[in-house]
Amino acid sequence: MSQTWATSHGLDLHLDRSLTRVRAGLESAVREAIRSGRLGPGVRLPSSRVMAADLHVARNTVAEVYTQLVAEGWLTSRHGSGTFVADRPEPAPGIRQRTHDTPPPLVHDLRAGRPDLSAFPRSAWAASYRRALSTAPGSTLGYTDPRGLPELRTALADYLARARGVRAHPDRVVICSGFAQGLDNLAHALHTVGAGAIAVEAYSHQRYRAIVTAAGLRTGAVPVDEHGADIRALTGCAHLSDSGAALLTPAHQFPTGAVLSPERRRSAVAWAHRTGAVLVEDDYDGEFRYDRHPVGALQGLAPDHVAYAGTASKSLAPGLRLGWLVVPDRLLDRVIGVREASGQLVSALDQLALADLISSGGYDHQIRRGRLRYRWRRDALSATIAGHAPQVRVDGVAAGLHAVLRLPSGTEERDVVAAAARRHLSVEGLAGYADPAGLGDRRQPPALVVGYGTPADHAFTAALARLVAALEDCQRRRQGARALTRAC
Amino acid sequence: MSQTWATSHGLDLHLDRSLTRVRAGLESAVREAIRSGRLGPGVRLPSSRVMAADLHVARNTVAEVYTQLVAEGWLTSRHGSGTFVADRPEPAPGIRQRTHDTPPPLVHDLRAGRPDLSAFPRSAWAASYRRALSTAPGSTLGYTDPRGLPELRTALADYLARARGVRAHPDRVVICSGFAQGLDNLAHALHTVGAGAIAVEAYSHQRYRAIVTAAGLRTGAVPVDEHGADIRALTGCAHLSDSGAALLTPAHQFPTGAVLSPERRRSAVAWAHRTGAVLVEDDYDGEFRYDRHPVGALQGLAPDHVAYAGTASKSLAPGLRLGWLVVPDRLLDRVIGVREASGQLVSALDQLALADLISSGGYDHQIRRGRLRYRWRRDALSATIAGHAPQVRVDGVAAGLHAVLRLPSGTEERDVVAAAARRHLSVEGLAGYADPAGLGDRRQPPALVVGYGTPADHAFTAALARLVAALEDCQRRRQGARALTRAC
Repeated sequence: MSQTWATSHGLDLHLDRSLTRVRAGLESAVREAIRSGRLGPGVRLPSSRVMAADLHVARNTVAEVYTQLVAEGWLTSRHGSGTFVADRPEPAPGIRQRTHDTPPPLVHDLRAGRPDLSAFPRSAWAASYRRALSTAPGSTLGYTDPRGLPELRTALADYLARARGVRAHPDRVVICSGFAQGLDNLAHALHTVGAGAIAVEAYSHQRYRAIVTAAGLRTGAVPVDEHGADIRALTGCAHLSDSGAALLTPAHQFPTGAVLSPERRRSAVAWAHRTGAVLVEDDYDGEFRYDRHPVGALQGLAPDHVAYAGTASKSLAPGLRLGWLVVPDRLLDRVIGVREASGQLVSALDQLALADLISSGGYDHQIRRGRLRYRWRRDALSATIAGHAPQVRVDGVAAGLHAVLRLPSGTEERDVVAAAARRHLSVEGLAGYADPAGLGDRRQPPALVVGYGTPADHAFTAALARLVAALEDCQRRRQGARALTRAC
Repeated sequence: MSQTWATSHGLDLHLDRSLTRVRAGLESAVREAIRSGRLGPGVRLPSSRVMAADLHVARNTVAEVYTQLVAEGWLTSRHGSGTFVADRPEPAPGIRQRTHDTPPPLVHDLRAGRPDLSAFPRSAWAASYRRALSTAPGSTLGYTDPRGLPELRTALADYLARARGVRAHPDRVVICSGFAQGLDNLAHALHTVGAGAIAVEAYSHQRYRAIVTAAGLRTGAVPVDEHGADIRALTGCAHLSDSGAALLTPAHQFPTGAVLSPERRRSAVAWAHRTGAVLVEDDYDGEFRYDRHPVGALQGLAPDHVAYAGTASKSLAPGLRLGWLVVPDRLLDRVIGVREASGQLVSALDQLALADLISSGGYDHQIRRGRLRYRWRRDALSATIAGHAPQVRVDGVAAGLHAVLRLPSGTEERDVVAAAARRHLSVEGLAGYADPAGLGDRRQPPALVVGYGTPADHAFTAALARLVAALEDCQRRRQGARALTRAC
């Protein structure tokens, strides 16, 4: 039973009498009374004797509460004259309700960069985590190697050599909490070795440009065409050729979907070798290649010039926050230094669970399942567009979890995006990925970036139907406008 | 059975014939032959017909392998003239074995800042993690609120109000991967709102000074005495009074162990209110207070002026990488912005597991167990020193997992540390925590910082014995030197 106590001194403390721990209750009631302003600064509290009698509690209890609240700074005790509410510089501020609302999520989501989260292998992960937890030595739960635990670095070095052709000694593998942190580490390391700038593909995540800029590097834009990043710009353009680094997505350019051509791979490595630059290889979806074997990582061609980066965000889930770098020898100490200085470590149990999942074959199994699932979706997307919106060309589908839909001339990206939103479908235009400063006349024609990973299996067909309907809406409007023009 | 195949063209590919996947085997054998330099640039490979005949595999298999390796940049194909090893800018570098060896760990460890990792509640954590994994909606595994998941923010807001007197609305709770990341977030946020400097206690972790400096803030040193940080310096010293922030450890000054006096708590809040500065409260071990209730957090006095920071590193384990901030309203958007810009998120499953552990009472239970354990150890340390090294004064033991041992005058910290190391005991001197630039004449006399959290229960008594022996070594040497002086 809750009731309010008023003492004979008229201080209504709203003390909940049902509390079994009288002292704790009294303490927090006084605290709250001061916080809320009911007891103002300078107010003299009843002596502990009087208060104890009023409340029918032991005098010692009240004395302890007063002592505690004096220690915490709520009260002051002036010797011989009693206990007072301490001066506070201001009235207690109300905590205003904040909202960081993102707009209500659209029902269907075909944005790129997300895997099907309903396919996360919960039981395999649970089993690996349980094994990790039951076998981890206590020391792994402390402060450990800033590169990550040797168990995971060894498992990854083996996996990456096998699956991606990466030449990774475990000593050069660094575990991080996703690509953003890895890029941050590399950018800071490059900055400390004197790189002034990094060339970034003219179409890419805006956030990545922000991360390298925050680390003190200038950015230059490498044009992108149907063969991937146009490496000739690295040698041909004065403002790019002396960049100390380049950030590339060789396996599947993000977001245009092009695969870096063999000739350009060699040119990139030759440029790095000649100038001493470092190529940062963002291998964000290299495992998901459909038409033949995965294209091996660029890193395998030149491990001393390429910093390789991968994550579990596509293969498992972004929410795990697990990524990795394979760092060239000459940057390794710098990367370690960056992580050490800012105390960057990744959860030990998560690391051991991933090591277990890889070693037990569960990780490969999940990749194979994913490859089948996403390949089916890619084929469904291509067939649906071919059948229902033949004016649209599907591009960049050799790999990955997204495609680029080239819109017919005269169609604006933003019109399709808006038409999709009206049908409760979230999809993005290509222009949003363009480096605003870096394109010149190399801007690509209007296109959508369609992620086919995001929906759960059961929702995929419905999402495609909405996409087709949105494309048809725009097509109709365009034909209507043309008819009107002719009529005038 | 493994054997080496040499083709009739004399190319020894070291192909492992037992591989069931012939194509994969051939592909990686060719890759490896190029990597290792056995196949040099420009070397012409046998035609696919010849190679297939040599190896007794289908010609198509060889053709596919060649196509793949051309795509990866290892080979080039010149129309009509065959397939060649591509030019590579350099011989394949050997991966040299790197060692980042820390010195071999000493057998006994009494360094501060680490809890007893053998006390990590494995089964309670496993149960919470399992529940989290089985109930988490798929969406939590994606990219989520940069502040962390609402489940954990709500559980923490409730816990912190209850246990630490923190006024925390869940909207203002930010989950981070430990104090270092939280401090980094706050320092960057402070920098963006125009704070030029942060006052830091003159004794503290060197790393924290490095983190705030890296964010662009200058540091000033607040002297530390037996009542904690001397807040008068914040108002009295010109170079400190206009700092935009101060980093404090009010509950238990790290490392000196003093508790910030009530008067100084009020002064700190008054200074922040008057100047608009932010107090960063590092509540690293506030739960572990032994002689009475925990001293409530400073934040409860002035939530608009205090950014509160806590972690699970002492209560559970550093290896979990879980920490939290309670951020004043005016810094909140900036902190969120910092986290968003660099893609900082914490593992969703870890967050949900901690939320479950708190809500289920397991977290409080673990704290209570820890309080008993560490209190016992503190008492054992005090009694042992009093009994065997009475010349040493034990200080700063009202709370936390470490004590300060004031050495008798004439004893050098480094001598005791060295004597301890000879006895395979790791322990640190106080001087290592001093701000080299900020002490002036406020340097504290020689002392050891002794962490009594680190050893497992069974190893604690032995560690104490080594400590006493090291102190006795120094005492004997000092007496010997004095006798020698007298004799001369």
